[in-house]
Amino acid sequence: MKYLVGLNMIKMIAMNIRIRISKYCLIVAIATCLFHFEAVGQTDFNLMPYPSKVKIGTGKFLIDKGFTVGFAGGTNKIFDYSTRFLRRLDGRTGLFFNQNYLGENDTNETASLFIRIHRTGELELNEDESYELTISSEQIDLVAETDFGAMRGLETLLQLLQRDENGYSFPSVTIKDEPRFPWRGLMIDVCRHWLPIDVIKRNLDGMAAVKMNVLHLHLTEDQGFRIESKVFPKLHEMGSNGDYFTQEEIREIISYAGDRGIRVIPEFDIPGHATSWFVGYPELASAPGPYEIETEYGVKDPTMDPTKETTYQFLDKFIGEMANLFPDEYMHIGGDENNGKQWDANPQIQEFMSNNNIASNHELQSYFNERLLEILDKHGKHMMGWDEIFQPGIPTDIVIQSWRGRTAMEQSAERGYQTILSNGYYIDLVQPASFHYLNDPVPEDSPLSQNEIQNILGGEAAMWSEIVTAETVDSRIWPRTAAIAERLWSPRDINDVEDMYRRMSIINVQLEELNLLHIKNYEMQLRRLSGGQNISTLKTLTDVLEPVQGYVRHGKKKFTTFSPFTRLADVANPDAPVAREFRNIVDAFLKSGDLEITQEIKDFLLLWIGNHDDFKDLVTISPILKEAEKLSLDLSNISKIGLQALSSSVKHTEAWKAAARKTIDAARKSHMECELRVTDPIQKLVDASK
Amino acid sequence: MKYLVGLNMIKMIAMNIRIRISKYCLIVAIATCLFHFEAVGQTDFNLMPYPSKVKIGTGKFLIDKGFTVGFAGGTNKIFDYSTRFLRRLDGRTGLFFNQNYLGENDTNETASLFIRIHRTGELELNEDESYELTISSEQIDLVAETDFGAMRGLETLLQLLQRDENGYSFPSVTIKDEPRFPWRGLMIDVCRHWLPIDVIKRNLDGMAAVKMNVLHLHLTEDQGFRIESKVFPKLHEMGSNGDYFTQEEIREIISYAGDRGIRVIPEFDIPGHATSWFVGYPELASAPGPYEIETEYGVKDPTMDPTKETTYQFLDKFIGEMANLFPDEYMHIGGDENNGKQWDANPQIQEFMSNNNIASNHELQSYFNERLLEILDKHGKHMMGWDEIFQPGIPTDIVIQSWRGRTAMEQSAERGYQTILSNGYYIDLVQPASFHYLNDPVPEDSPLSQNEIQNILGGEAAMWSEIVTAETVDSRIWPRTAAIAERLWSPRDINDVEDMYRRMSIINVQLEELNLLHIKNYEMQLRRLSGGQNISTLKTLTDVLEPVQGYVRHGKKKFTTFSPFTRLADVANPDAPVAREFRNIVDAFLKSGDLEITQEIKDFLLLWIGNHDDFKDLVTISPILKEAEKLSLDLSNISKIGLQALSSSVKHTEAWKAAARKTIDAARKSHMECELRVTDPIQKLVDASK
Repeated sequence: MKYLVGLNMIKMIAMNIRIRISKYCLIVAIATCLFHFEAVGQTDFNLMPYPSKVKIGTGKFLIDKGFTVGFAGGTNKIFDYSTRFLRRLDGRTGLFFNQNYLGENDTNETASLFIRIHRTGELELNEDESYELTISSEQIDLVAETDFGAMRGLETLLQLLQRDENGYSFPSVTIKDEPRFPWRGLMIDVCRHWLPIDVIKRNLDGMAAVKMNVLHLHLTEDQGFRIESKVFPKLHEMGSNGDYFTQEEIREIISYAGDRGIRVIPEFDIPGHATSWFVGYPELASAPGPYEIETEYGVKDPTMDPTKETTYQFLDKFIGEMANLFPDEYMHIGGDENNGKQWDANPQIQEFMSNNNIASNHELQSYFNERLLEILDKHGKHMMGWDEIFQPGIPTDIVIQSWRGRTAMEQSAERGYQTILSNGYYIDLVQPASFHYLNDPVPEDSPLSQNEIQNILGGEAAMWSEIVTAETVDSRIWPRTAAIAERLWSPRDINDVEDMYRRMSIINVQLEELNLLHIKNYEMQLRRLSGGQNISTLKTLTDVLEPVQGYVRHGKKKFTTFSPFTRLADVANPDAPVAREFRNIVDAFLKSGDLEITQEIKDFLLLWIGNHDDFKDLVTISPILKEAEKLSLDLSNISKIGLQALSSSVKHTEAWKAAARKTIDAARKSHMECELRVTDPIQKLVDASK
Repeated sequence: MKYLVGLNMIKMIAMNIRIRISKYCLIVAIATCLFHFEAVGQTDFNLMPYPSKVKIGTGKFLIDKGFTVGFAGGTNKIFDYSTRFLRRLDGRTGLFFNQNYLGENDTNETASLFIRIHRTGELELNEDESYELTISSEQIDLVAETDFGAMRGLETLLQLLQRDENGYSFPSVTIKDEPRFPWRGLMIDVCRHWLPIDVIKRNLDGMAAVKMNVLHLHLTEDQGFRIESKVFPKLHEMGSNGDYFTQEEIREIISYAGDRGIRVIPEFDIPGHATSWFVGYPELASAPGPYEIETEYGVKDPTMDPTKETTYQFLDKFIGEMANLFPDEYMHIGGDENNGKQWDANPQIQEFMSNNNIASNHELQSYFNERLLEILDKHGKHMMGWDEIFQPGIPTDIVIQSWRGRTAMEQSAERGYQTILSNGYYIDLVQPASFHYLNDPVPEDSPLSQNEIQNILGGEAAMWSEIVTAETVDSRIWPRTAAIAERLWSPRDINDVEDMYRRMSIINVQLEELNLLHIKNYEMQLRRLSGGQNISTLKTLTDVLEPVQGYVRHGKKKFTTFSPFTRLADVANPDAPVAREFRNIVDAFLKSGDLEITQEIKDFLLLWIGNHDDFKDLVTISPILKEAEKLSLDLSNISKIGLQALSSSVKHTEAWKAAARKTIDAARKSHMECELRVTDPIQKLVDASK
């Protein structure tokens, strides 16, 4: 039963026996809790991203109250980071360590953990993040070129924490580690839905925990201008409904990120996606206005007028202001999805094009980008943008972020442009972690030459926020972003999907100590939907649901910036763990025929069959769940089929199989933007029945 | 079985049958989920604080997608508040309302909800917060003198939301409501443990939900100086380890609070509790220094030197700076717990006292306060302070905050001083909500005259932070502060404890939509303690534990500002709901002898008996729980006694009873700062056994 060893998670199987007592109902549920006490094997550390070289030793370093940290060549950043490390370790172990804030006086070479650093890291591309971690029963040695490398090593160390009846320990091991790609980013769109600074900070902590090093903030959009401009205050005042980062907050984000070895790249998306700029400054647009902050989604018409000198004068001042605020050498100017309709409709713009031999809107945008490039250059920034910014002749110091596909990225690399991959890392599309995990920027069969491959800097997970809020965004970022982080940090041949899921489920819980809400908001949202503390019925259903993948939800006209994102599709998680576990159990049964497993399968199926009666009752007090009744019924019906497939008293005729398939296929159809994720294994049971 | 109708909460009873399968263990738990579908009765609304006058009508207002809000006399604050109201209502109902941001154009008198306001509220003591809410099947009318009154009414309206098979509705009702006391506060100590701005903001939302109107920020302490001073930057730079509110953040807090009709009172605690001031400015102290930020708790020696003119010059500038920052007319100067040891030991101070006929340290502090009063007066502020600031002759425009007892408060009121009660509202002492609830500032038998009673302005819940962190503080504030809020808002005769608990358990869940972590961090902390997702064993134990009440934990020397507050006593909740429910069930059984209830009691007892074997296993992988093993064993043992008490096959001899009592009494003893909260009902079962 190998399939279970790795899962290490709770599973609740409840078979419902309903007994009504006067006004209220008593549900006696038989819950089966499956877990095992994991002993870390010799080659099976719960590390993520997995280091490039791991050599197992013998013995372990026992942790007690006297655990201390010392430094050689320490920096303020590593003192602070190590202090937080100490608090996290103390929080997990409850040992009451004696050291409080660490600092330059902590130079004891016999400290439990001794950290040696050669120099302060610079927040720039290609900075050294390598480290060596050596644990013996006597001492823990962490050596790194930069303090950033030491931070990466401290996260590895925390992940190595082991526990047994003798207490807490670190295993003897030697790890030599460095990232595969220098650009491992997370883009967060704070515009479509406003995501305040505490969301950003806790996600920066999450990023650091999985060794990511670039936060890309998408700061301006049709739906909101989310940064204070002191030079053009109407940008944020009229373009944001009051929800924006002050410059003080931006400085705090940059400092918080920098303390974790994370660069911050701002994106100001122009010339399209810029409606919010035009609310305060309609003269920037290619049509007269007035403009309002957009509340709907999609590609909108408003776009900057690239033919007026005043546009560039404005951008020069604005970019100048932002260049001072953001220290990173790169600045992202978006550049995507300009539909050109305002340009087509504006006679002055048409005249300008004709006078200047500009044959197409694409060429006009190239002209705009050239002018923008001059401005960025003047203010000491390299340009970064989405695929669309490429044009022949554009200098090669830019970075192209590929969202349209791997081919686009490879073309950029061939042409000598530095590029990062985001296609395949769009986490707002709620695809499974495995999908992102196997999306290697440079797969083994890459058509690129070694030189061209050097142009591929890495990638960025992209958290677009049309259909997430501050309440749900953590559960869309985590834990799947940990899989992307591993893809970008670890060697290419670390790519076993099952082992990734095993490790991710453990890292997932650890991420909670960083204040991330990705796990805990699940039941909170179920409480709101159920209208009270009793969520068991709803949870049984939601545990096997996933939100529909891709752009199905985005495409629904009904969603605006102010829609309620509190419904089942907002609560259900990608990679629904219970559904995943059921699929694994069924696969294991079909492979082994083990009868013990059959009983587990039946327990699940009985739970789902019985749940529907309770669900019908729940709907009478929670009308918001009315639309989900079909999902509950489908689950009940296909579970009955699953039971029949396992039953020796049912004849599994072709006619029965055909009817079963029909019912299962009907249950595959998404409903209220959710999908039942246990149709495949039940179909497998049907197929295997004889 | 009336005792259950009100509880409306999930109960999980699991009897453990353990089956070991190869390496891992399978726990089959029988879970009993008890809940009922509550139909709101004619006199039984889930309102908290309960309004002063409620008149039930017939019928209801049905809510649909077309729900709208209109205004007469609207203010910016009520537009924004109503917008948030609309989003919360839409979040609960999932109806996709059409209105986005509400504003002055929303004047439709036939709107579903029409809000009439006479004037903008002022953020000052005694501002009008009354409102009238009239709901018919046709329309909802909310009328208030000020926008603050309308905010209070909107919270009442949200609490009235009902749901059944026909959808969501508001019941027909007429409510006339106003607060009993004008000062209904929450004090938060952000010093002992740093609590950043997002903690403050979400708690301001919680306060508004229960109609509180004063946030008192305890900003300086021995353990930290938590506010930026531009005049004396070494205060926060050297006195805070970097954790402090910037002035921009303070302005944001004041604005956020004001938008919810909440005043903000800053406290700068002097002359004692002031070590953090002296780190940067040792010349202020009564002994030479140097000083370090205090990491331990208790009354410390460092205190300001009240004999130097430079002290008052410093305070004049500092108070001047803060008086500009905080608009409220009151400023809190602390004044508590100065032990005078530094004064006794300082010859210059002794000489000053002798030269100026100052006979005691108490008189010296009076001298200090007189000088301080001049400074506050100069900067346009009334003084507020703890009991100790009272001295004969001090002007009566001050407010005395009574922490030492009701008698002290009544003396102040008799002497003509305005006063508020905090004694009995110290929520850091984790006493039950009922204790705070019955702590009426002006009980029926108050010895005060009507005129003197007018001096009692209200009260403040006090959230001291020695043993809480940003992770745990919400669970110490909520839901118990809702009971205090009701005590201070509702008429005196709204004082039924059981009904309060019934309503509080419902409000408790609603508070979650405001981002409060009081419920959701419970299981997160259990996951960290258990080292993974499977928390069922630990939860079964923790559900019947409460942290020890009073100063038992504070008194333990081992706690410092950097201790791990991640242990069982930090996770266990006051008013442990499962323990409370068990006590109620046992009481109901002993009253009625109902055999159905016996089975419920037995299910609980069997669960607790069986849990201990699992707990022993858990300890082998979670050493942090080792110290809790005794609690689990005690629970198992007394549960066995409970079963025996219910068994007809056990002879309940006096000897058996004596032995049972001995075991139960032993289990009453707190252990690792926790108490088992089911000893009383089990003792009752023993006492009742024949």
